[in-house]
Amino acid sequence: MKFTKMQGIGNDYVYINCFEESVEDPAELARKVSDRHFGIGSDGLILICPSETADCRMRMFNADGSESQMCGNGIRCVGKYAYDHYLVEKTEFDVETEAGIKHLKIKPEHGRAVEVTVDLGVPEITSQVPELICVEGKDYEFIGISMGNPHAVYYMSDIDSLDLLAMGPSFENHKRFPERTNTEFIEVVNRDYIRMRVWERGSGETYACGTGAAASAVASALSGRTSHTVEVELKGGNLTIHWDRDGSGHVFMTGPAVEVFEGEFDITNL
Amino acid sequence: MKFTKMQGIGNDYVYINCFEESVEDPAELARKVSDRHFGIGSDGLILICPSETADCRMRMFNADGSESQMCGNGIRCVGKYAYDHYLVEKTEFDVETEAGIKHLKIKPEHGRAVEVTVDLGVPEITSQVPELICVEGKDYEFIGISMGNPHAVYYMSDIDSLDLLAMGPSFENHKRFPERTNTEFIEVVNRDYIRMRVWERGSGETYACGTGAAASAVASALSGRTSHTVEVELKGGNLTIHWDRDGSGHVFMTGPAVEVFEGEFDITNL
Repeated sequence: MKFTKMQGIGNDYVYINCFEESVEDPAELARKVSDRHFGIGSDGLILICPSETADCRMRMFNADGSESQMCGNGIRCVGKYAYDHYLVEKTEFDVETEAGIKHLKIKPEHGRAVEVTVDLGVPEITSQVPELICVEGKDYEFIGISMGNPHAVYYMSDIDSLDLLAMGPSFENHKRFPERTNTEFIEVVNRDYIRMRVWERGSGETYACGTGAAASAVASALSGRTSHTVEVELKGGNLTIHWDRDGSGHVFMTGPAVEVFEGEFDITNL
Repeated sequence: MKFTKMQGIGNDYVYINCFEESVEDPAELARKVSDRHFGIGSDGLILICPSETADCRMRMFNADGSESQMCGNGIRCVGKYAYDHYLVEKTEFDVETEAGIKHLKIKPEHGRAVEVTVDLGVPEITSQVPELICVEGKDYEFIGISMGNPHAVYYMSDIDSLDLLAMGPSFENHKRFPERTNTEFIEVVNRDYIRMRVWERGSGETYACGTGAAASAVASALSGRTSHTVEVELKGGNLTIHWDRDGSGHVFMTGPAVEVFEGEFDITNL
């Protein structure tokens, strides 16, 4: 079976073109291909399929085989693949996901997508701005934002010295967040640039969290720290987030999508 | 550039056929391909090259770009590749390595190598059998064996309950081992089967250490715990070690070699 390995700021998936290939048991295949020593090695599996309601469809499976609704870094790579491989011959198009239809905009150079913008919809403010919680006997101010999934955004002067292994779980499992929370630790560099480290619920520290970057940009604009367009520096690279606060209210994420290599495997060897 | 990803009991490398491809800067390429999020993802890079003194030559680079002498799991995969891709059309042949020429024996099935045996040479006994050392105020008996690299073999009744993160560094950095040591923690199941966990100097716990399995088999036969042919169960799979103690004195390692997938990359995308 043919596949393409792609990554968006370090968030890497095995992509299969289901306009040509057919996958019988995607959960099982996701577990096998994701193994970083015995398989191909990835954060999961993404199938790019025909759609009856949009230009194409993305189905996404985590490394443990569970199906996931959406991933901002993953859908940018779907956009690049669909454009570069002529599955969709437009620079703006719609992708069906388990979280609804998402709109993409391609920035092409020499016939290839070099950057992709995805419309992440309207954010929901889920706390006071700011709200106070007590973590391990100390008070912290955070801003709660939902981008479909829950985020707590916390500001500090230096994220490099942060003990994330200690702080991340304290936020994640705090009683204020009965469904647990992703937490973004943000250092504001100037009105147009912030730096971020993220603790993802269930995963720990990761290279990149697209919805976390979006939530952080919204919280930063909301609290007057930045303008409505901000570059977010994550461990795996940079994303640009634009919040069209006075217009549609939607949040747009723009960032790179890279095709790392193409390959072919025989499933009996995984 | 074309490549093949192969693994031997979970020890995985990117292999390049340098009978056809040419690599200008292998150290730089090793760093790029080994990255598990932005590259192909591997423990390192192995080049399979023509040789003037043997049937083919193996050059091996770690993920940090440093050149390595030899790897038992790596050379088994070199053997499978050379046989399956008709670079060497024999079932017994020699491979030039930075640690000298190594002899391989292929077990073919339907024209493909399914198992490879490598002659690891003569072990050197580097301690009394056993020798006592004091680690963190407690006495431990170990057997020291060199397979070109240093090993300390320690026996215990249950390796699953072992706190390797604590014990491993205590052995590795003990003053008894001025060049540090790899340490194998061994549970003897019966005279033909042992279980092993390994702490590799500079790497920590790994799935597989071929020379560690060989050292452990030699120590086990030497101390009368097992016969001279023993199956070693590692985290990543099983190896069979035969010590021809009364003949050549050589140690032979037999185990699987798997071609996981073939691919092609453009170095500018890594």
